[in-house]
Amino acid sequence: MIKTITGKRDFIESLRGKRASFLLCMSNTATANIEGITQAGIPGLLHLTPTLDAEFITIGEVRSLGSIAETPKGVPTPALITRAVHLLHPFREIELLNLGLEIAPSVEYFTLHDFGITPSNSIEQGACIPAEEVFEKAIQFAQELSIAGDYIILGESVPAGTTTALAMALALGYDAREKFSSSFKNAPEGIRARVIDQALSHVNESDDLFDILSQVGDNMVIFNAGLLLGLQNRDIPIVLAGGTQMACVLLVINRILQMMEGELDTSKISLCTTKWVAEDVSSDIKGLLEMNDFTLNAYYADFDFSLTDHPALKLYDEGEAKEGVGAGGALVYALLNGITKEQITRKVESFLG
Amino acid sequence: MIKTITGKRDFIESLRGKRASFLLCMSNTATANIEGITQAGIPGLLHLTPTLDAEFITIGEVRSLGSIAETPKGVPTPALITRAVHLLHPFREIELLNLGLEIAPSVEYFTLHDFGITPSNSIEQGACIPAEEVFEKAIQFAQELSIAGDYIILGESVPAGTTTALAMALALGYDAREKFSSSFKNAPEGIRARVIDQALSHVNESDDLFDILSQVGDNMVIFNAGLLLGLQNRDIPIVLAGGTQMACVLLVINRILQMMEGELDTSKISLCTTKWVAEDVSSDIKGLLEMNDFTLNAYYADFDFSLTDHPALKLYDEGEAKEGVGAGGALVYALLNGITKEQITRKVESFLG
Repeated sequence: MIKTITGKRDFIESLRGKRASFLLCMSNTATANIEGITQAGIPGLLHLTPTLDAEFITIGEVRSLGSIAETPKGVPTPALITRAVHLLHPFREIELLNLGLEIAPSVEYFTLHDFGITPSNSIEQGACIPAEEVFEKAIQFAQELSIAGDYIILGESVPAGTTTALAMALALGYDAREKFSSSFKNAPEGIRARVIDQALSHVNESDDLFDILSQVGDNMVIFNAGLLLGLQNRDIPIVLAGGTQMACVLLVINRILQMMEGELDTSKISLCTTKWVAEDVSSDIKGLLEMNDFTLNAYYADFDFSLTDHPALKLYDEGEAKEGVGAGGALVYALLNGITKEQITRKVESFLG
Repeated sequence: MIKTITGKRDFIESLRGKRASFLLCMSNTATANIEGITQAGIPGLLHLTPTLDAEFITIGEVRSLGSIAETPKGVPTPALITRAVHLLHPFREIELLNLGLEIAPSVEYFTLHDFGITPSNSIEQGACIPAEEVFEKAIQFAQELSIAGDYIILGESVPAGTTTALAMALALGYDAREKFSSSFKNAPEGIRARVIDQALSHVNESDDLFDILSQVGDNMVIFNAGLLLGLQNRDIPIVLAGGTQMACVLLVINRILQMMEGELDTSKISLCTTKWVAEDVSSDIKGLLEMNDFTLNAYYADFDFSLTDHPALKLYDEGEAKEGVGAGGALVYALLNGITKEQITRKVESFLG
C-alpha cells in the first residue's frame, strides 16, 4: 500500500506498471568523520558506504570491502531493500552518479557518470564546495540525460547527509531544527548541534545562496537541485527516493526560485520515502515539504519488517535506520508492480542468511 | 540464482530488467541419423526436432507432428523450459534462423530468416558444407540485424550437435575428447568414437580451417562463429544460450582469430547454460571455455527439477537431457526478471498434463 504524505494519489498511480530507471547519487562529505555523527556505515570506513551500497544494488556483492556495510548496532544498509526490489521486479537499468567519492565503486557494465566532483570538507570547517559549478554540471546533465525507463527513481547514499541537509536548511533561513531525520533512533543532538552551530558560523550576512551552499552544503543536495531544475523542460517524471535529505533538495530549489522569482512545475516530480521516515516522531518530512511555496506529491511505502523475526531487520522498526539508497522509492516501485510485503521481506532476509 | 562459470557477475547483472530478443538457430545434420548417436528426438524422425522445437516455443503447439519431441526414454525437449519462460516473462520477440532444415517450421507471424543453407551430410561421410559461404552469410546477417530487445539470447536446436561439435574441436587440434556433453546421461562413447574417427579421417594435413569445418562441421557452429564476429562492431550484447556446442562456436572463433592474428572483444558476449551442463561430471564446459586465448563471461542458471515429482522431468536431474533450444539462457533470463524456480517448474509441468 502506498500512502500519501502531501498532494494527491494521482501522480503515483499514473506510474503503476511503468518501468523505472534507478539513478544512485553517491557522495562523501568529511562531516561523516566526526565521531558519533552518523551510524550509516562502519566506523573508520564511513566513506566507503556509498561505494559499497552501489556495488551491492548493481551486482549483489561488495567488492571494496569484505562484508556489507553495517552500523555499529548491526543495522544493515537499506541497500538490501533496494537490491531485493531489483531482484523481484528489476529496474529497467541502474546508473551511478559519482558526486564526489573517495573510492569509486568497482563494477563493470554499469554506467558510472563522473562529473569531476571531489568529496567535500566537513561543514564544521566549511565544506568548500564549488556550489555553482556543481549546480551547473547538474543542469547540463539533466539536459543531456537519456533513460531507457519511463521515469527516474533518484536515490542517494551520503553518510552524514541528514546533518548537512539540516545545516543547509537552517542556513537558508528555514525553521527546521526539529524536522530533520537521522540514521539514529535518537539523533545525536549534542554532537549535531555543535557541528551545525560551527557550520553556521561560516555563513556571513553578505553571502548569497551559492556562497552559503558552498560552506554548509553537500554535493548531493546541490547537484540534485540543479538536476530537478534542469529537468523542468524535459518530459521525464522523477521520483526523489529519500527522506528529509531529498526534502532539503526542494527547500534549496524553493530559495533559488524565490531569488529568481521563478516557479516550479511540480507536475513531473514527486518524493517517495519509507514508513520509518514518514511516521518518525522525531522528524517531520511533511512539515519540511510544506515550507515550500509550491506543493509536491509525496508518498511513502506502507512497508515495515513486521513479517520477519530477524533481529537486524527488527532494528528498522525500532527506528535505528530509516531510509537511504532509494529504499523508499524502491519499495513504492515494488508495490506499484504487484510485489508483496511478504516477498520483499523474504528476499531481504535471504541476504542476511 | 545465477552462478558464474568463468569471468565476473557484472555482465549478467547489467542485463537484469532488460528485455531480450530470442533467436533460435535450427539445423539438421545427417549425423543424427546414425543409430544411437543422439536421443534428441523421435527415432526415425530426428530431423524434425528443430522444426518442432521452433513451433513449440513460438506458438505453443507442434504442427509438423502430433506430439512434442520426446526421447526414447521419454525425456521431453528443453523447448518446454524455453516456452515456459516465454509465458512467464515473454521475450521481446522470437525470431527463427533456418540454417539447413529438412522441413521448415509451420508458423506464421514470426520472422523466419532463410539463408539458402541446406542440411549437411553426416560427418562420417564428410559433411560437405560450403563453410566459408555459411560463415560469410552470418557476417552479413550480423551487419544488417536489427532487434527490438536490448540484447540477444541465441539458442540452437541441432540433433547430434554435440557429436559434430566434438568432431570440430578435435579436428581443430583441441584436446577436448572428454569435455563435450551429450543428450544421454552416458554418452554413447562407442558409437561416438567410431563416428568421430571416421569424420577425422576426412581431414588432411593440407586442409585450411574452412576445409576442416566443411568436412566435420555443422551449419549452426559455423554460422554462429560468423555471427559473433560480425557483431563485433555492433552495439548488441549477445548471450550464447547453450552448452558445449556454443562453447565450440568460441573454439572455432579462437582458431579463426589465431589465423588472422585478430583479437575478440568479449565485452558484449557471454554464454549461459543450464546447471545440468555446468555440473555435468562427464563433460567440462569450463575447461572448453578456458582453451581459448580470450576470457569470456559465462554463467549458469541454478535451476533443476527438484520441485517436481513428474517422472519425465526428473530425468533431467538424472542427466538424461541437459540443454538445448536456449533453455539455459532462457532460465537465466527468467531469474534476471524475478521469476522463481517454483513458477518455472509449475509452468513446465502444465505442458505435460
